[in-house]
Amino acid sequence: MKKLHCDVVILGSGISSTIQGMILAKSGLSVILLEKGSHPKFTIGESTVPQTSLMMSVLATRYGVPEIAHLQSFQSVKTHISPSSGIKKNIGFVYHHKSKPVSCKEFNQTSVGSKFHAECHLFRQDIDVYMLQTAIRYGCKVFQNTRINNINIHDQGIRVSTNNFNVSAQYIIDGTGHSSLVAQLLNLRDKPCTLETHSRSIFTHMIDVKSFDSCVAKNCMAPSPWNQGTLHHLFDGGWLWVIPFNNHETANNHLISVGLTLDTRKFPKSADISPEEEFYKIIQGYPDIIKQFSNAKPVREWVSTDRIQYTSKKCVGARFCLLSHSTGFVDPFFSRGLYNTLETINSLSRTLLNAFKNNTFSDTHFNSVEVLQQGLISWNDKLVDGAYISFSSFKLWNAWLRIWLLSSSYGVLRIINALAKYSETKDIQFLESLDTMDIPGAMAPNSINIMDLFSNAYNVIKKVESDQSSIDEASKYIFSMLLSSERYAIPIFPFQHEDKHVADIRPIAHLKLLYWMKFQAPIRVRQKYLNFKLSTMKKVISG
Amino acid sequence: MKKLHCDVVILGSGISSTIQGMILAKSGLSVILLEKGSHPKFTIGESTVPQTSLMMSVLATRYGVPEIAHLQSFQSVKTHISPSSGIKKNIGFVYHHKSKPVSCKEFNQTSVGSKFHAECHLFRQDIDVYMLQTAIRYGCKVFQNTRINNINIHDQGIRVSTNNFNVSAQYIIDGTGHSSLVAQLLNLRDKPCTLETHSRSIFTHMIDVKSFDSCVAKNCMAPSPWNQGTLHHLFDGGWLWVIPFNNHETANNHLISVGLTLDTRKFPKSADISPEEEFYKIIQGYPDIIKQFSNAKPVREWVSTDRIQYTSKKCVGARFCLLSHSTGFVDPFFSRGLYNTLETINSLSRTLLNAFKNNTFSDTHFNSVEVLQQGLISWNDKLVDGAYISFSSFKLWNAWLRIWLLSSSYGVLRIINALAKYSETKDIQFLESLDTMDIPGAMAPNSINIMDLFSNAYNVIKKVESDQSSIDEASKYIFSMLLSSERYAIPIFPFQHEDKHVADIRPIAHLKLLYWMKFQAPIRVRQKYLNFKLSTMKKVISG
Repeated sequence: MKKLHCDVVILGSGISSTIQGMILAKSGLSVILLEKGSHPKFTIGESTVPQTSLMMSVLATRYGVPEIAHLQSFQSVKTHISPSSGIKKNIGFVYHHKSKPVSCKEFNQTSVGSKFHAECHLFRQDIDVYMLQTAIRYGCKVFQNTRINNINIHDQGIRVSTNNFNVSAQYIIDGTGHSSLVAQLLNLRDKPCTLETHSRSIFTHMIDVKSFDSCVAKNCMAPSPWNQGTLHHLFDGGWLWVIPFNNHETANNHLISVGLTLDTRKFPKSADISPEEEFYKIIQGYPDIIKQFSNAKPVREWVSTDRIQYTSKKCVGARFCLLSHSTGFVDPFFSRGLYNTLETINSLSRTLLNAFKNNTFSDTHFNSVEVLQQGLISWNDKLVDGAYISFSSFKLWNAWLRIWLLSSSYGVLRIINALAKYSETKDIQFLESLDTMDIPGAMAPNSINIMDLFSNAYNVIKKVESDQSSIDEASKYIFSMLLSSERYAIPIFPFQHEDKHVADIRPIAHLKLLYWMKFQAPIRVRQKYLNFKLSTMKKVISG
Repeated sequence: MKKLHCDVVILGSGISSTIQGMILAKSGLSVILLEKGSHPKFTIGESTVPQTSLMMSVLATRYGVPEIAHLQSFQSVKTHISPSSGIKKNIGFVYHHKSKPVSCKEFNQTSVGSKFHAECHLFRQDIDVYMLQTAIRYGCKVFQNTRINNINIHDQGIRVSTNNFNVSAQYIIDGTGHSSLVAQLLNLRDKPCTLETHSRSIFTHMIDVKSFDSCVAKNCMAPSPWNQGTLHHLFDGGWLWVIPFNNHETANNHLISVGLTLDTRKFPKSADISPEEEFYKIIQGYPDIIKQFSNAKPVREWVSTDRIQYTSKKCVGARFCLLSHSTGFVDPFFSRGLYNTLETINSLSRTLLNAFKNNTFSDTHFNSVEVLQQGLISWNDKLVDGAYISFSSFKLWNAWLRIWLLSSSYGVLRIINALAKYSETKDIQFLESLDTMDIPGAMAPNSINIMDLFSNAYNVIKKVESDQSSIDEASKYIFSMLLSSERYAIPIFPFQHEDKHVADIRPIAHLKLLYWMKFQAPIRVRQKYLNFKLSTMKKVISG
């Protein structure tokens, strides 16, 4: 049997494996990727948020791989990769009551871009192939259709045997996700999974899903058409994503990604009904959702999962790391999966390159990666669990949404600040500063007590779940906290005003934002998050 | 087990199955497609020739499915589907001697388009998905990831059982190609295969294959850059295709399709060497070929086949049809595979729609489809076999090439004439006239003795193979035949002049062509092939 040698062997060839691979190869390590299937492949994980895109910039800049930054906006994806991805100018949430049309007061929308710079609905089969080719260009050796027979992880190194050859390496990274071989081998999965979130999903790609804008009364319109972003239909016990790829002038892709995600305790899975039948049975209850699907047809088989949460006791150890979704997963709500992956790659890359430099592969050397990954999962679980609880009423959801928006806005500002300072100084320590956080894996640093506010809000939401608090009380409490921290609120989205449901996207609002950043933001906010010239910001945001 | 009913069940969901499906669904039949894998998928069969594109127009027009005509040119594919396909402005052949640089006199090139209307390098994963979605829009029910357990073909109808459900139908079409379940079930494959061609193939998709134009001396240039078309490197015993998808300004696809096809008698397959090693071992012998691959990297595993020819004793019977590559296959040389598929679909569609109209599913009703498919394979075999024999010297290849070009040009004119007459009259009988040919499956009708000339040339080529004739004699004989039929030669490519190797693509040549068509072509040619107003031609060719 042929023998191959490399520094790092990576299992899988999805976007996490290839980004990790190209960074390590660019940094001088020899890398082999092993993939049991082959590209092109259907995958979900399509919708980016500003944190995702900014972390793409961080990785591209820090590790000298500009191709990663090609994923940082819809426009950049279209230019460098393909017009098959969709544009995401907004994140929209529409609340539905059983058997009732939507109310023009029960929706939220926040802006995440314009026709010049917007977030993206990544058409993964094309994106993943582009990243695979890029990894190959940087020198990664990729073997597809390769079945792994055995993995041996020992103090001196790694041995992997496949159906065609054997590989020896110094380190192994498992990027294969839920079915992670390393997690199986080392018996790392928590059983049962102790996350608070309990959800399952039914999803596919469809054609001829109507634009939701054509399904609701004109006076229900939000400032940005629903079709121009990621639409979330919310209802008690679940939510439905609608992610169009066909929503721009140059679109050549007719598909819309559609997925129904359900609280398993309110909607237990039954074997008696097909995924498609269940999908229609549930959306049938919501007259404005069913309108959107009156002519829709799936172009592939529906996937119906069991509970999608899983976690691991441990994700790094002597000479191995479970990368992101190989460690655990919460839920696609809030689109944090890919962002969490990039945070992990950022942290693991530095740690691993140091390990090779110093020939130190001990557990403790990698401890920061362990803490980061477990933190990312745990905080994401609270965020999503809070959302599912809040879906019981628009009033509660409308409060919890603000907590997500406030904390993730400060998460965004943290990265913008680092990129802006790097841009002004070319001092790499500003990017390296992102490696540590006072609360590892949290949505935002706690330097201005945002995460304390988050935890207080989560606690009161949990009281609603256990009937120790009413929805009205909880909502009132959350808004009162937001009002008392008004000075931290960023004046594009009026976080603290219960009756304001949309981000203001007029130019005047952006001027207000700049004025606030320069003159009104509290000194702690300016020191921590706005410590750069305003003129740098545009450069940073548009890459 | 769930039971489904339909008129026609089609196995496979590749381009032949979906085009067949959409035509039947549009014509009012209920159609189910069963696919064992799922899209997106890697497939080869990428390069179109004018016959392919014109037959797309015929099918689109005749059966009222305009989406089929979206495949009729590079420009149309780019507009309607994706910029991921490549442009094909020329068909190029470069002859190589072992260990020698190419000679500036040993190449041929023929023009098949311009930046306004050109043939296409179909990026199949995107094209096939577009056609799948179109079939679904026309009402086909498609089930992917569906394993077939049993097929029952009896006088009253068809029953197919799968892992998920059972299907009953009036008729079954197998579009799964080489591994055809119906061919296996009914034991229809010829064993051994009696075709004259003996070839095998080693292929993959690569990045960073150089443009061949940058690998040869400037004075070796052909009128159209090699990179703007399908390049065939020829050598004694085989040929190599180079099909770029990245050869236009709007390209977002970095891939180049690369395949080495070898005469199994001159290059027997060995188990001792990997496909990649064998590929490089062989091209190493040709200094100008190896230059083109000095930086190339595969993006997927190499495929190395055994002999690729196969045929079937029978391809239609009571209630079944093996569609095109399910019946047989010859070789990718001359790119006739997809054209043959479309000819078969054209013929089968009419026959099958009549069968449903009259409720007649007897063998004899479908006999014309049997004769057509067997004819297409048999004539293609002669064409390709002649080419492999001729690869022993440029002199002989240079003669055989003219036979291909002359016969296929008249094949093209046959379709242009039908489309043009239909365009002028809107009388469907002109399209229906394509259903019959005096020699079924031949490159061209024999009305002006083109196929007699073809057969004579093939006979003399076979004499070279059996050492009954020298290369010089054979070549001289073929050119003397061409000179004596000079009046039939079409004045863009100087078929009959041995020392002219390229099609004239200057505007003056096109004027000459029009003049010839109007005033100089023999009366038989004008009656049979040019029986339309010249002003119609442009409309027909550019769809």
